[in-house]
Amino acid sequence: MKFKRFFVKNIPLQVGTSYELGRDHYNYMINVIRLKQNGQLILCNNTGYDFLCSLEEIEKNKVIIKVLEKNINKKEARVNLTVCQALVKNDKFELIAQKITELGASGLIGFESKFTAVKAKTNKLDRLEKITENASRQCGRANTLKINKVVKIDVLPELLKGYDLVLLAYENNKNSLKEVLKNKTPKNIAIIIGSEGGFTNEEALVLEKEIKNLKTVSLGKRILRAETASIALAGIVMYELGEI
Amino acid sequence: MKFKRFFVKNIPLQVGTSYELGRDHYNYMINVIRLKQNGQLILCNNTGYDFLCSLEEIEKNKVIIKVLEKNINKKEARVNLTVCQALVKNDKFELIAQKITELGASGLIGFESKFTAVKAKTNKLDRLEKITENASRQCGRANTLKINKVVKIDVLPELLKGYDLVLLAYENNKNSLKEVLKNKTPKNIAIIIGSEGGFTNEEALVLEKEIKNLKTVSLGKRILRAETASIALAGIVMYELGEI
Repeated sequence: MKFKRFFVKNIPLQVGTSYELGRDHYNYMINVIRLKQNGQLILCNNTGYDFLCSLEEIEKNKVIIKVLEKNINKKEARVNLTVCQALVKNDKFELIAQKITELGASGLIGFESKFTAVKAKTNKLDRLEKITENASRQCGRANTLKINKVVKIDVLPELLKGYDLVLLAYENNKNSLKEVLKNKTPKNIAIIIGSEGGFTNEEALVLEKEIKNLKTVSLGKRILRAETASIALAGIVMYELGEI
Repeated sequence: MKFKRFFVKNIPLQVGTSYELGRDHYNYMINVIRLKQNGQLILCNNTGYDFLCSLEEIEKNKVIIKVLEKNINKKEARVNLTVCQALVKNDKFELIAQKITELGASGLIGFESKFTAVKAKTNKLDRLEKITENASRQCGRANTLKINKVVKIDVLPELLKGYDLVLLAYENNKNSLKEVLKNKTPKNIAIIIGSEGGFTNEEALVLEKEIKNLKTVSLGKRILRAETASIALAGIVMYELGEI
């Protein structure tokens, strides 16, 4: 990567136009990586494009940048992978967010189920977004992970409508992952991973019934910790879909 | 898992025989999980077997256990996967050790190369062994990860003699992992992952020349952090070999 990349949200960037960026970006650009006037950088606004920019002006606590070029980002996966993860402790949840970003996932949905022992902390969302921005920056992506607000497990069927394939990791199941993934070329795929306690039989049955393209899969004979399951399954899915 | 499992080394356990275990095991058995006399537990000595034992006597800072049964452990992988990881910061190295244990790996070799920025700390080996013991306990394995002392990169060819397949993750390479793993059924497989800085061209060339069954592979278009590469590749290899 030649230029540092920065993530902005809700700004529909256009070539030839100048934009003002506030204190957060100012701090990192000027005080941390010490960009100078006319220095170049890449802005990304979660559209899959890299916008090559130059730093036009440095003012007090803000900078003006101008968009020079719009280029398609080639590091983005061609498939859309959403990870639905039952709540686990914050450090594990953050690890999952970071690792699945590197592996090319596009979304993360935290959910509460019968055996989740952790409560959703809405105040941690900012931190989670910083972590995935850093991960996207480090691996050269143009998009950051879309992080959904935490939902109850029974909202998942609604959120996963329109997915071509949904994998539910459920240890009481014997379907081999390989068999399930064979000859499939989904564009929109989701994986559902439980917390340390897993799912109740009833939860699994309801998900199976209410999510159209759902397949339950076994992750093998060793019991994986929740974060290991999420990261490994995301990696394997990306591998099977030609993304690794 | 019905019974708690404990790891002993260098004790060739035999059914019908009694053994004395010292302070470490005493503390965990008696003070932490509060086993009582005649309580049952599983001892493992890295032979792939679970030894069902009963706690015969509790003495001052030691316990006497008797082996009742010897059973083959069904959670161990049928293949031998060794992860060779260029040194990274301790917390990342520990994460790798923990996760690859869950994924079923059998060995971990840390190594120093041109771009490793971290020095080997021999005093951390105890901690690393505790981490993998805990991981093995949690996922029901009979074996813990064999952790090699840290070596220089040029020692790897000697250590990897006799492996059927060695995968070198090297970003300047275009071989698809899927192509390389296709129709292969190795029993002894190793993966080599660089530090954040990766490998020099010369290091990659030397490894390619000196390791007989080595294939260089790409891990895709996104740049993975070292620990993500190790964990994801270990997961994918175990998946391809029917272990996940």
